[in-house]
Amino acid sequence: MELKTAIEKLNEIQKAQYALRHAMSVIYVDGDTVAPKNSWKGRGKALAYLSELDYKTTDGPEYPEILETILANRENTDEKTFRQAELMKEDYDNMHVMSMEEYVAFQELTNEADTVWHEAKEKSDYAMFAPLLEKLIDYQKRYAERKGKGEKKLYDVLLDEYEKGASMAMLDPFFQQIREDLTPLILEIAKKPAIDPPFLKNTWPIAQQRIFSEKVMRMEGIDPDCCTLGETEHPFTDGMNKWDVRITTHYHEEDALSSMFSVIHEGGHALYDMGSADDLQFTCLAGGSTMGIHESQSRFYENLICRSRAFCKPLLKVMQEVFPEQTKGVTAEELYRAINKSQPSLIRTEADELTYPLHVMIRYEIEKGMINGDLKVSELPGIWNELYKKYLGVTVPDDRHGILQDSHWSGAGFGYFPSYALGSAYGVQMLRQMEKDIDVWGIAESGDLRPITAWLADKIHRYGCLKKPQEVLLNAMGGPLDASFYTGYLKDKYEDLYGIG
Amino acid sequence: MELKTAIEKLNEIQKAQYALRHAMSVIYVDGDTVAPKNSWKGRGKALAYLSELDYKTTDGPEYPEILETILANRENTDEKTFRQAELMKEDYDNMHVMSMEEYVAFQELTNEADTVWHEAKEKSDYAMFAPLLEKLIDYQKRYAERKGKGEKKLYDVLLDEYEKGASMAMLDPFFQQIREDLTPLILEIAKKPAIDPPFLKNTWPIAQQRIFSEKVMRMEGIDPDCCTLGETEHPFTDGMNKWDVRITTHYHEEDALSSMFSVIHEGGHALYDMGSADDLQFTCLAGGSTMGIHESQSRFYENLICRSRAFCKPLLKVMQEVFPEQTKGVTAEELYRAINKSQPSLIRTEADELTYPLHVMIRYEIEKGMINGDLKVSELPGIWNELYKKYLGVTVPDDRHGILQDSHWSGAGFGYFPSYALGSAYGVQMLRQMEKDIDVWGIAESGDLRPITAWLADKIHRYGCLKKPQEVLLNAMGGPLDASFYTGYLKDKYEDLYGIG
Repeated sequence: MELKTAIEKLNEIQKAQYALRHAMSVIYVDGDTVAPKNSWKGRGKALAYLSELDYKTTDGPEYPEILETILANRENTDEKTFRQAELMKEDYDNMHVMSMEEYVAFQELTNEADTVWHEAKEKSDYAMFAPLLEKLIDYQKRYAERKGKGEKKLYDVLLDEYEKGASMAMLDPFFQQIREDLTPLILEIAKKPAIDPPFLKNTWPIAQQRIFSEKVMRMEGIDPDCCTLGETEHPFTDGMNKWDVRITTHYHEEDALSSMFSVIHEGGHALYDMGSADDLQFTCLAGGSTMGIHESQSRFYENLICRSRAFCKPLLKVMQEVFPEQTKGVTAEELYRAINKSQPSLIRTEADELTYPLHVMIRYEIEKGMINGDLKVSELPGIWNELYKKYLGVTVPDDRHGILQDSHWSGAGFGYFPSYALGSAYGVQMLRQMEKDIDVWGIAESGDLRPITAWLADKIHRYGCLKKPQEVLLNAMGGPLDASFYTGYLKDKYEDLYGIG
Repeated sequence: MELKTAIEKLNEIQKAQYALRHAMSVIYVDGDTVAPKNSWKGRGKALAYLSELDYKTTDGPEYPEILETILANRENTDEKTFRQAELMKEDYDNMHVMSMEEYVAFQELTNEADTVWHEAKEKSDYAMFAPLLEKLIDYQKRYAERKGKGEKKLYDVLLDEYEKGASMAMLDPFFQQIREDLTPLILEIAKKPAIDPPFLKNTWPIAQQRIFSEKVMRMEGIDPDCCTLGETEHPFTDGMNKWDVRITTHYHEEDALSSMFSVIHEGGHALYDMGSADDLQFTCLAGGSTMGIHESQSRFYENLICRSRAFCKPLLKVMQEVFPEQTKGVTAEELYRAINKSQPSLIRTEADELTYPLHVMIRYEIEKGMINGDLKVSELPGIWNELYKKYLGVTVPDDRHGILQDSHWSGAGFGYFPSYALGSAYGVQMLRQMEKDIDVWGIAESGDLRPITAWLADKIHRYGCLKKPQEVLLNAMGGPLDASFYTGYLKDKYEDLYGIG
């Protein structure tokens, strides 16, 4: 095949994939936000067909030839096209591990599992979800077996899908350091008087929270013409392209902070998607790189910036505009302490910054057992509750507050969780670099975070998937991953907060 | 081709069409409701690709053979499949009247015309729109010439597209009777004191209107698990399947009735879509039949039931729950008079029940002249204004409030308007039949309209497109169309309201 022909065909395929994936994304977002409950019946059929078409865009004998032609012609191919071919080759190899029938059946399975998980969580009925979880695990194990060709541990195959280069050999010591560095501090804090300011016990009407969300998005620098906010059980971000990103949140009347930090977190993902260069859009290079890098951005805003002492000043000002009664007389320092209080808890998404990585570690431990084959599905709730007792000292009252809390497994996302902890660690190393270039805390105190976004856009966002993840990370972090930046940051922050050391 | 093969292929095509159209519908609804403003860039790309795929489902030489094989084998084909082939043959024949090049050029023309019409309406500049209108008329006349093969009048060809069986021979006497029966009454009412209750001048906060909409949908019997409400500039209904229907409304703070009747009207369309039999779903037989029958359902709820004296009692109760201040001291009779006040006006979509069919009649008269060839495009605004003066006694101040008000012509929808009046007339005949079977007004007064929906579902909704429209109508109306039921109903209602006769 001529190189020119190969490139034309590759562009045609990406055009088709963009259209089909745009459609599937909108259908998913719609399904989770405003679609009526019973819409799953038609949605499943539409998604099954569209994903079949998506599969077919790269099916048949010609596609590998297209890729090979480009990959064999690096010197005559522009950087973007070559990188597209590289990434599409990776995807191709992943996708063709399973047959099309298996793949389509899997799409239907995850659609069903998602619906059942929602109901099972509501009813706190693990038994209802278990048979589907079993099928999802089976599928991913079969996938990992074929993909790894017996040369790699199954869980390593899955880890690498979400975070290029991640493995148990890397994550075991990473989590060990976190456990060793943070557990003594967590125990120390447990002996201190709890931070429990009365203003947190107020009621925060959802109508006001909706207004507050808009203001928070504006502070974060999100363009409302390119990103809108929906409401779902579990917050998420879905970016069709840089001009069309959707984030969601979940409001709780008794808690203004939960939704606020969800909006900021998802907003961080959105800014990443919105920051990739114009000329990468509608190709496979648009949007973010690995899950870990994605989480580094969301957790950067959520924790490093928006839970900082400096940001509490402008944040309090906006809270007092929207919730004058609930925040009357509150100081910025009280707000800072309130949003950073550390207490071992049951729910990962509501965990404080310090105990958060232990929630991730528990899931990592369970997934290791689940995928490498030791743990049975029926045993999982027991193990879950045991590990929460062991590492966080909390008693899980029911599966709704335990093993059924996260959506990831209903989507077969085994191997995803570690990227949250990796992302947090990447973020701290990026912060240390950023502090060398710009006045991070002066910017945070101004309440207009756009210069921070500009730094991240320059180092990370604009590349989309054009650069290799390790290259982007090295560029933004100034060196390879080193967990001690992360644990050092947490120790400094929490020792100060609780007057330790 | 074997019959079995043909049926299998027809099912495959419908499966593909369902998926693609489901996706396009969700993308449209999302785009009109919650998508960010700049999302059009990606949406256009996705929709263009999906509609190309949709076109291709019936492209190529095999498709006509599939249809012919089934249509030649009625005795060996089940009722549903045969009807599917019949309807798909009609679509195919319509589509292939024009060449592919002509069809594509026409799509571009309507896109351009829509954009120009929006601007022309805003600027009240008919001259700007006229050259495009001329081209649209030319295209439809050419279409009608070829389709009718010189055997039918051109406008009859177009009328039949929207309302199977409709023709000038049927509509001329229909509108004549409406004109003769209603004009004296409208003139009589003009002499009476206007109904103008002060409570209508209140402010109706949108947050409360949203709550009210939910309650109104509940009264109408809409299952919220199958139908949700969005907010758009122009209200519409889009039904993916019976379990997934979306309706929209537009809130005006100074007017609670506008959105309320939009919700009820679109809710009527939704109930029709939601009532078609389970085994018709995901095929071309799901959803509603002709435009006239669809409008008969929406206008049935909007006018015949929800503007009735009986329904005003439960309606007032719900209004007083949600808007206690705005409706303090209002009686059901005052509400009844307020929502039925009649006054000749300029805008069709805001017209009352009595004057509404005259708005339609004016458009019918103009379209007859326009398509059959007597009227020139440059003459249309003059004729429009003349007819509004003649039949409604109102002076059109500018084209924005006159000939440019509706979107239909910019989409080349000549022949559509009569279905609004036909739908209204069908509805009254259905009501008269319904009164024989169930206690309609007792049900309306109870505020739970589900038994009314059950009757309509049994006579109409469940058939979807399985039965021929005329068969469904005859079944529900107990006889052929007779405009005197409609005009009789309007005369009785409005003579009583204004104390005439």
